Amino acid sequence: MARSQATSLNLEPLLNERVDWRYKSFPVGPAVPLRSVGDRGWNVLGGEFMLPVMVLKDSALRHNIELMARYSRGHNFRLAPHGKTTMSPQLLKRQLDGGAWAVTAATMSQVRVWRSFGVDRVILANELVEPASVRWVAGELHDDPDFEFYCLVDSVAEVNILDLALRETALGRPLQVLLEVGFVGGRAGCRTPEQALEVARAVEASDRLALAGVEAFEGVISAQTLGGTIDATDRFLRDMRALVVKLDQTGHFAKASGVIVTAGGSAFPDRVVAAFGSAWELSRPVECVLRSGCYVTHDAVHYQQLSPFGGRIPETGPLQEALEVWGVVLSMPEPGLALIGFGKRDVPYDLDLPVPRHIKSGREAPHPFQGEAVIFATNDQHAYLRLGGPENLKVGDLVGCGISHPCTAFDKWRLIPLVDDSYRVIDAILTYF
Amino acid sequence: MARSQATSLNLEPLLNERVDWRYKSFPVGPAVPLRSVGDRGWNVLGGEFMLPVMVLKDSALRHNIELMARYSRGHNFRLAPHGKTTMSPQLLKRQLDGGAWAVTAATMSQVRVWRSFGVDRVILANELVEPASVRWVAGELHDDPDFEFYCLVDSVAEVNILDLALRETALGRPLQVLLEVGFVGGRAGCRTPEQALEVARAVEASDRLALAGVEAFEGVISAQTLGGTIDATDRFLRDMRALVVKLDQTGHFAKASGVIVTAGGSAFPDRVVAAFGSAWELSRPVECVLRSGCYVTHDAVHYQQLSPFGGRIPETGPLQEALEVWGVVLSMPEPGLALIGFGKRDVPYDLDLPVPRHIKSGREAPHPFQGEAVIFATNDQHAYLRLGGPENLKVGDLVGCGISHPCTAFDKWRLIPLVDDSYRVIDAILTYF
Repeated sequence: MARSQATSLNLEPLLNERVDWRYKSFPVGPAVPLRSVGDRGWNVLGGEFMLPVMVLKDSALRHNIELMARYSRGHNFRLAPHGKTTMSPQLLKRQLDGGAWAVTAATMSQVRVWRSFGVDRVILANELVEPASVRWVAGELHDDPDFEFYCLVDSVAEVNILDLALRETALGRPLQVLLEVGFVGGRAGCRTPEQALEVARAVEASDRLALAGVEAFEGVISAQTLGGTIDATDRFLRDMRALVVKLDQTGHFAKASGVIVTAGGSAFPDRVVAAFGSAWELSRPVECVLRSGCYVTHDAVHYQQLSPFGGRIPETGPLQEALEVWGVVLSMPEPGLALIGFGKRDVPYDLDLPVPRHIKSGREAPHPFQGEAVIFATNDQHAYLRLGGPENLKVGDLVGCGISHPCTAFDKWRLIPLVDDSYRVIDAILTYF
Repeated sequence: MARSQATSLNLEPLLNERVDWRYKSFPVGPAVPLRSVGDRGWNVLGGEFMLPVMVLKDSALRHNIELMARYSRGHNFRLAPHGKTTMSPQLLKRQLDGGAWAVTAATMSQVRVWRSFGVDRVILANELVEPASVRWVAGELHDDPDFEFYCLVDSVAEVNILDLALRETALGRPLQVLLEVGFVGGRAGCRTPEQALEVARAVEASDRLALAGVEAFEGVISAQTLGGTIDATDRFLRDMRALVVKLDQTGHFAKASGVIVTAGGSAFPDRVVAAFGSAWELSRPVECVLRSGCYVTHDAVHYQQLSPFGGRIPETGPLQEALEVWGVVLSMPEPGLALIGFGKRDVPYDLDLPVPRHIKSGREAPHPFQGEAVIFATNDQHAYLRLGGPENLKVGDLVGCGISHPCTAFDKWRLIPLVDDSYRVIDAILTYF
């Protein structure tokens, strides 16, 4: 069974990073040690930064981390935030210090990053099929008795790969695997209880593996309407719960001291809590684990529309937007058209384009757009903004935007200024993509 | 007038980089100095790399750099390759050593990167409107008499911003600007000759600016058919040429010893050569400059369809694909569906999804897909591959893909193994996005 104590994260490997020309948007001048960025008196809208710049708002981050920690704790769920969203040890440290129980990773390269910072409880929410990666993680588990690692299995073929690769290692304890369940038309994961039981039997047959629980990612379920998606999600999670019971009844968790049941992105954690939060009657204690990632910064469109907090869960109030991208008006070549100096290299464009929110003109404080302002296209380094009415935007003005989809925002920035509510830089956040 | 001698690039700032856990896909183990990566005996398909991995093929790179250098030289054009494509000093060094005359940049953060490597001729193919950036580049020009810098102007407002910011500097020579021309419905750039002349007059009125030429990016022109796009491009470039003549006749290049005329992405360099390659009769010598970026790696779809080399320009033969992404089959949960371990964090998805080309199974050599294989969707870390017929793909196999749009491939990788035709790692290429 999983230890219940918190894991930790040691920021030492990054504190000596030099902030210099390698980090776009940061001010020119001599390199600054990361640890003293907050002492420079910088303001991202003060003119020293070379726009575009993406900022992280400290107050919103704190709010979101606290909200999610409270929500999980209140429902007796563990939280293993998906680290792939930010790939930032500094942000994960805040999440772990706030009570998160583990980190979730999507790839073994990501697991390697977290291990470099001493994180000792990692869920690889993915299949593990590369023999060298299996051997590496077996080495980590061998060398560090406190390291807990879980990966997913959804096929007998994968179970055989794991078993074979582990034979070449000196690992003295079984590798803990979670059975992934999916659905027809979905991503990975067993499609039927029969397939799941077949995989579970293959795990049982291996001395080197232990079935530690069941996993799914419900966030890829999609119907025509939000209501339809929620209904489909609820049905899926009900089936998943039935499978957990079945696997327990058939003795497939025999090598585990407890059972992990995990699902939950940032769109439907409430449905996961509804499905798994009520009492279980298994042969072993159950540990329910949420794996939300995007909640940490929230966004202006996609998760704004889907997040349950403040809506389906009124008592928590909403998450707050922690990410904002600022660009400069480079050109206004036609009436109502402004070219902004950010593009596909700087802002997400996979789900929705950025949403213009604020104008900053000269030394004035930022103020909201009065009329309609829509970013309707992006090139690699440009955004096209259409103004619906008269608006005193001019060349050289700064435009601040909300973004949609944190995962494809973070991966465009190696270092992100952390700002207070006045855009003063209080720290800088490294990412490792 | 621009010096005609080549610029150079000093790789010193990156040679001591440590290859470690910060660079996804690179093998585990102790950090390796960048300069000795080629001595490790690594093969990206040999099992040590944690997939996904994107590779750069050395032979294709050399071919493309040589082809483009020969083509430009043969038509008496200068080449200022767009550095934004790769943001890689190691690749730009090859381009400069191959005869490229300058680097093109899209943002001042990019200019800063190139200056850190000693590049002393830079075209900022964008408007420059941030006062602190103007002051910084003025400082660079002041401190380094060999540094040549050009930026674009397309509005009187911008000219005034430049003039005002330069007053606060000690720059003893005028900042060289290129007048950007555009078209209605396009990106930045003056829409009419009248607007262009107005901006040129504003430049003339400033003691701190000199009009050094005319610039456009024809790559955003798009019609229903390729033929229609080419016709529209030809008309646009003809108008641009007429404007250059007009500006010369009206004395607007008076502060320049020559005139730079520059256009040309990787789709239509032949149209630019056709428009500007014939004799000019101006008061000053003309320097025609191509700014192609994507040619350096080419691709499997977008530029494969648009590139003139080997098609509209038969004598050169085609460019070669230098980028390939490899992922592992994580799961085959339904007949004909494979989940591959790369996604939006690893591959371009803005124009087209990756194109499956090769399978590598166990210790076998890679072989081509026999039947239809299509990647039809990507998530953050997954790709969905549909097999059209029976294909012996299985969990753990590796899938190699061509990509579409080099610009959105490079920005997803901080370090890219450079491989020979057998996928042996001969070097590793850093990027600075």
